[in-house]
Amino acid sequence: MIKFDRDALEDFKTFLTEGNFSKIFFLVDEITHEKCLIPLLGELESLPETEVLEVNPGEESKSPEVLVQLWKVMAELGADRHSLLVNVGGGMITDLGGFLAGTYMRGIAFVNFPTTVLAQVDASVGGKTGINLDHVKNLIGLFIHAEKVYILNNFLETLSPGERLSGFAEMLKHGLIADTDYWNKLSVYDIKNKIPSQDMIRRSIEIKSQVTEADFKESGYRKILNFGHTLGHAIETTALDEGKPLLHGEAVAIGMIGELLLSVEFAGLDEQKAKQAIEVLRSVYKDAVFRYTLLEQDFTKQLEVARQDKKNRNSEIRFTLLRNIGEAVTDIVVPEEKVLEILKYLNKV
Amino acid sequence: MIKFDRDALEDFKTFLTEGNFSKIFFLVDEITHEKCLIPLLGELESLPETEVLEVNPGEESKSPEVLVQLWKVMAELGADRHSLLVNVGGGMITDLGGFLAGTYMRGIAFVNFPTTVLAQVDASVGGKTGINLDHVKNLIGLFIHAEKVYILNNFLETLSPGERLSGFAEMLKHGLIADTDYWNKLSVYDIKNKIPSQDMIRRSIEIKSQVTEADFKESGYRKILNFGHTLGHAIETTALDEGKPLLHGEAVAIGMIGELLLSVEFAGLDEQKAKQAIEVLRSVYKDAVFRYTLLEQDFTKQLEVARQDKKNRNSEIRFTLLRNIGEAVTDIVVPEEKVLEILKYLNKV
Repeated sequence: MIKFDRDALEDFKTFLTEGNFSKIFFLVDEITHEKCLIPLLGELESLPETEVLEVNPGEESKSPEVLVQLWKVMAELGADRHSLLVNVGGGMITDLGGFLAGTYMRGIAFVNFPTTVLAQVDASVGGKTGINLDHVKNLIGLFIHAEKVYILNNFLETLSPGERLSGFAEMLKHGLIADTDYWNKLSVYDIKNKIPSQDMIRRSIEIKSQVTEADFKESGYRKILNFGHTLGHAIETTALDEGKPLLHGEAVAIGMIGELLLSVEFAGLDEQKAKQAIEVLRSVYKDAVFRYTLLEQDFTKQLEVARQDKKNRNSEIRFTLLRNIGEAVTDIVVPEEKVLEILKYLNKV
Repeated sequence: MIKFDRDALEDFKTFLTEGNFSKIFFLVDEITHEKCLIPLLGELESLPETEVLEVNPGEESKSPEVLVQLWKVMAELGADRHSLLVNVGGGMITDLGGFLAGTYMRGIAFVNFPTTVLAQVDASVGGKTGINLDHVKNLIGLFIHAEKVYILNNFLETLSPGERLSGFAEMLKHGLIADTDYWNKLSVYDIKNKIPSQDMIRRSIEIKSQVTEADFKESGYRKILNFGHTLGHAIETTALDEGKPLLHGEAVAIGMIGELLLSVEFAGLDEQKAKQAIEVLRSVYKDAVFRYTLLEQDFTKQLEVARQDKKNRNSEIRFTLLRNIGEAVTDIVVPEEKVLEILKYLNKV
């Protein structure tokens, strides 16, 4: 159940009182500890016994080593099956914390306070949790839902412009795959100077929830959420390997540009509409697109990453593409040479 | 879905053919590899690509270290979400393998071939999977069901008499908590010289399935399965700590003797009936009962283990006891001094 702002705080207070939890554990990183948890605790009058588990910020904390460490610390601090885990942070924290709670004593209750745009619209819905293994993202994990997701718009003020833009890419994706009107609204929004409005966050969550509820285990329809991600993931991985990492949303934005081009050839998207959408993406993500062109890309390796994507079978490369703005189609096989051509094109100035 | 003997083999062949799996992984220990997997593979004509994952026998393999190692090996061997994990072994293998499959890529399909009495009647039903953490048994895990459970009576011939007796304790428990007729049959069975019959295994599975289906998440009714386990677990832990480990079922048998005594005082069990049942247990587990009396027990520590049992709240010690042979009651709070008295009594010759 998702609650916003004042409703969220009220609901959380009631939940804590009625839940009769033996102990409350907060999972945070160094940054969200200071910027989000401290203000949040200030809003709560009285709490049962609490403990704060702090990990380093960044994707590196989504590792088996940190996970095992957290299992041990929770046991040492006396967590039992009536304890509650409260995740306060971005997608790293909600992914790691969801998996931690889902596996401790075969599952204890947990709630999420996502603190980034990306986590608010994406990571907190759909039940995906997990950790990375040897640089393969989310290779280990669970499908499991938080008891509650609490969205506080204020938390978005704590983000850097880069993080804000990165999360906005997922919101743009939601418009592109499912809602033309929403896309039109987003495409003229001054995201460079403003945080996304609560209404926009709500609409994105609505779209994602509808898709994932219709298809909890990713067997079919849910794949429309992969738009931009097959190329985006390959771009993100290779940029990281070259020591010039892109934020997830930046890579997805570039991936969407490529997949809009593929959509014209392989899904019948109108060329003019594709061009307009690409213009929006190029303008919002100007800086990331430019930084990406400076990288020396190993295209064979990128192709390999796209092929190994866990959504593929038998080494075919399958895409989610757009038939129209606001309408996606899944499982489109694109020949390797075409994928390579697009990857090369995206790397050009 | 559970299948037996010839039906099991037929069903497994069909499942492999129709499942269209990208790769089959077998999880075994050194012993079940030789004694069970090799003969099993001999029964199967053609297989897709397979890999064998072998771990050391014994509870030590149910560790975070082995788990992380297996995650990595599976990734290296190209396991994808269309792979199948086949667990062939005792409860250690089915617990570890179920958790491994349930968390790899957020869950891949798995089937169990339990090879011990204990695993056939207990570990393969009810969806409990997991690993130990710093000597706390099953602290980390998941509730998740195998796609199939295949029970081959033949596999029980590979067990030592000790392992056979250990598993039989759980079967006796099933009779005591839920079925007087079944208890009467078991109490005269020549288990010292014969493996349990397929019919008995079936009846035990039936009882356990009915209980766990009625209560998938252990909120209530399922607790009747804990009979003998609160004391048994404390006994098992302290015996292990003293370097004279008892098998799980041996400890549970001794625990049942103690909890039958508690049942007379705290659950209204007829004293005569309790004595008869205790006589059966003392006779079948004569050797284990004797070995246990030789141990120097630290009763305060045993009490601590019983108190920390994950089924307890607020440090009370709660028991599942018998109102009658074949009828259990849950959540009976027993005063600490009484628990201590019973623990001391069990340790006497």
